Amino acid sequence: MFLLTPVLVAVICIWMVWIFKNADGSTERRKGEPGAEARPWVDEDLKDSTDVHQEEAEADEWQESEEEVEHIPFSHSRYPEKEMVKRSQEFYELLNKRRSVRFISNEQVPMEVIDNVIKAAGTAPSGAHTEPWTFVVVKDPDMKHKIREIIEEEEEINYLKRMGPRWVTDLKKFRTNWIKEYLDTAPVLILIFKQVHGFSANGKKKIHYYNEISVSISCGILLAALQNAGLVTVTTTPLNCGPRLRVLLNRPTNEKLLMLLPVGYPSEDAMVPNLTRKTLDQIMVTV
Amino acid sequence: MFLLTPVLVAVICIWMVWIFKNADGSTERRKGEPGAEARPWVDEDLKDSTDVHQEEAEADEWQESEEEVEHIPFSHSRYPEKEMVKRSQEFYELLNKRRSVRFISNEQVPMEVIDNVIKAAGTAPSGAHTEPWTFVVVKDPDMKHKIREIIEEEEEINYLKRMGPRWVTDLKKFRTNWIKEYLDTAPVLILIFKQVHGFSANGKKKIHYYNEISVSISCGILLAALQNAGLVTVTTTPLNCGPRLRVLLNRPTNEKLLMLLPVGYPSEDAMVPNLTRKTLDQIMVTV
Repeated sequence: MFLLTPVLVAVICIWMVWIFKNADGSTERRKGEPGAEARPWVDEDLKDSTDVHQEEAEADEWQESEEEVEHIPFSHSRYPEKEMVKRSQEFYELLNKRRSVRFISNEQVPMEVIDNVIKAAGTAPSGAHTEPWTFVVVKDPDMKHKIREIIEEEEEINYLKRMGPRWVTDLKKFRTNWIKEYLDTAPVLILIFKQVHGFSANGKKKIHYYNEISVSISCGILLAALQNAGLVTVTTTPLNCGPRLRVLLNRPTNEKLLMLLPVGYPSEDAMVPNLTRKTLDQIMVTV
Repeated sequence: MFLLTPVLVAVICIWMVWIFKNADGSTERRKGEPGAEARPWVDEDLKDSTDVHQEEAEADEWQESEEEVEHIPFSHSRYPEKEMVKRSQEFYELLNKRRSVRFISNEQVPMEVIDNVIKAAGTAPSGAHTEPWTFVVVKDPDMKHKIREIIEEEEEINYLKRMGPRWVTDLKKFRTNWIKEYLDTAPVLILIFKQVHGFSANGKKKIHYYNEISVSISCGILLAALQNAGLVTVTTTPLNCGPRLRVLLNRPTNEKLLMLLPVGYPSEDAMVPNLTRKTLDQIMVTV
């Protein structure tokens, strides 16, 4: 009996360690799982399970940038003060008319305009000038429909299962749901991928500093360019669709879907929520 | 002797659990620590150790959005096709002249222009229309100098200690280092904070969906607006300075520094690296 006790305690000890380890693991897993408190639009949305795991990559897989770049004088167009004020006022007024439009007609748009707005987006700054963006322009009706099928399938699960009631309530006022007709009707879908890393000429990986922020800045410029050209869109981040859409569009694993913009003219009966914007006082602080 | 053995084994058992727990903890901590392979510009840069830990917040601290928003017909300005092409071409050409300028003169800029560019930035779309941005405009020379001191102090550590040699090499071609004279000379610094959550009228927390992406989009529009007005800037993400600058500028804990833009006219001897941009073929794929 006395001889058995240490063995028994040892068994209890191993069992306790096991319990402890599992408890830790499940806590961690829970953090990443969808659910009302885990906020999956942050944790899961832009995650692509087919990721290349950068943190596991060997140091010598990464390429240092070695080129020395020549520096040249900067040439600048300066306007008189009065014109600066006028230009900035007009630009604000133009952009203030922009709305997220979910009703898009099937009328074709000039492709030269699409080229130009994407060229404008490509002028964005990026971490260490890595330009970590790929704009996939989808015009083919079959491909648009396949994209719609994937997004509606995943979105229905988001609405009914993955997301908490708060998310559904928060979106209700915009009358959004998982039916995305604009994915068929819009003449052009622009899918914006962030390249989480690049490749050098010698095949080694190249770090893309701040790639998500850089690509989002580029999308801001794209939205301004579309508004300036008289086209409408709605900024969408298809939740949990990234990996399937990446495979469908045959993009490499270093690219992850960040946003999808359906682009076109508004349909005749297009409605928008009657929202107002914060005033300057509410968004600006002067020191 | 036999009586003591179970006690001894129990002590060993508690000690093993302790070892296990600590081992797990240190592994986790290491993941977040700066170091060449951990890529701290992703892990650490935008982190603010004074964060409110959202994941620990109680469910009933969060406010559901309940307002029903009226929907109204969307009114749209449409241009003839030829004008669309012309407008999109001119917008691209305007933005293509934008460069990141690190040499900024101390000449004052019209504050009405600053107001207008921030109003333009405030037209950006945001997750569930939460408008999660605060633009802090710093004109006061003493405050600008304090900001410079914090940034240079942290940046020197970044260059000499925190970041790996690859980061230093990758930045060498831009001739950047930890001396940031523009923080004193630029007449205006715009510090852009993302609000990681908001507050409802009743004091409950309001979720800010996709706040970092939304604020980055807004910064893209801000950059376009500055370029349109004839002002220059450089997009900076002051590494590891967020918490100190937030405290200095007296911003609440739900706000985190995302970017800092020094704004002004270029100095007469301003130089820029002779970089080219990717061509349309390199950034666009058509399906």
